[in-house]
Amino acid sequence: MDASPDITLVQHRVLTAEREAAHGHQGGVVWLTGLSGAGKSTLAFALEEGLFRRGMSAYALDGDNLRHGLNSDLGFSHADRSENIRRVGHVAALFADAGLVCICAFISPYRADRAAVGEAARGRFHEVYVRADLATCERRDPKGLYKKARAGAVHNFTAISDVYEPPEHPALVVDTTAASVEDSLRVLMDYVEAKFAVGANQSG
Amino acid sequence: MDASPDITLVQHRVLTAEREAAHGHQGGVVWLTGLSGAGKSTLAFALEEGLFRRGMSAYALDGDNLRHGLNSDLGFSHADRSENIRRVGHVAALFADAGLVCICAFISPYRADRAAVGEAARGRFHEVYVRADLATCERRDPKGLYKKARAGAVHNFTAISDVYEPPEHPALVVDTTAASVEDSLRVLMDYVEAKFAVGANQSG
Repeated sequence: MDASPDITLVQHRVLTAEREAAHGHQGGVVWLTGLSGAGKSTLAFALEEGLFRRGMSAYALDGDNLRHGLNSDLGFSHADRSENIRRVGHVAALFADAGLVCICAFISPYRADRAAVGEAARGRFHEVYVRADLATCERRDPKGLYKKARAGAVHNFTAISDVYEPPEHPALVVDTTAASVEDSLRVLMDYVEAKFAVGANQSG
Repeated sequence: MDASPDITLVQHRVLTAEREAAHGHQGGVVWLTGLSGAGKSTLAFALEEGLFRRGMSAYALDGDNLRHGLNSDLGFSHADRSENIRRVGHVAALFADAGLVCICAFISPYRADRAAVGEAARGRFHEVYVRADLATCERRDPKGLYKKARAGAVHNFTAISDVYEPPEHPALVVDTTAASVEDSLRVLMDYVEAKFAVGANQSG
């Protein structure tokens, strides 16, 4: 359903430039996509902490946490996974508008869903492909889900019984197959510090 | 649907006390409820600006803005209005967790929905009743909606063709029937500065 024409947009009275001056950096969305076990949540919370320790305003959202609250009504069908990502994208855009670096760790297997998040974030969207080969992810299996998916006890599981559509033009690729968390984190920190600096062109 | 038992909660590595020290205040939710035309959105964006000018981290959500993004799939039936508030409540709780004062301006006519938001915000919820008598709201009619509702062109309109359940124990009442925006804003500013101070008991 389209928004009602009776709905008017009330403007914030704090300008984006004023928020940037207060935070010392721009707001935006750092979107980590990749297979289960690739290290997205680990990196997201490490990045949140790393940015915070450098005085930046950052907040991490991850699939597990969101599914306990906002998205607790959603399952894992294609439609529900898309709706999950649609909602998170709008939440992340709000955080970006508030001036924060919003770090999102979601498998987000479908390309179209990630593109829609980029639309919602209006140019302040950074798609980061957290890549690890399937064998590595399956060996890590932090939640035991690959084992269950192979046994048929979990359905619609990405890369086993559902597709994963890798980013075609990610802003950044972090390959965790062999790299340490520290090394991957350093790449992410450098990227965010450069791209979110006041005056930097986020899409450039 | 309950969250899957396969979903684990990943912990943030930045402590709440650390966020409070960085922001200089606690995070939490200031929830403005009341009739259309009572002045909720005006006060919300004025409060956001006022807190920002005093160096606080604040962000305002309002029904109109949210319905263009996160909740663009929802209408105005009882079920959709409840879902609208449920989602906003979880978003506000995330902002509070990030350490911000999240100001929410929503008619939120149903008591049970507001109680659920309070649950989601876990003790960091402040219900503010922005009160104005119906005749005043209808005279203001900022969006021309009362006129349409009286003519039957808008359905499920609060206080005309749908109920409004006023708060039974609001944390604060701001009566805008006669008071100026400046006076109402001062009451809100004083309340937030006292309640969100580091070390203050938000529920006390």
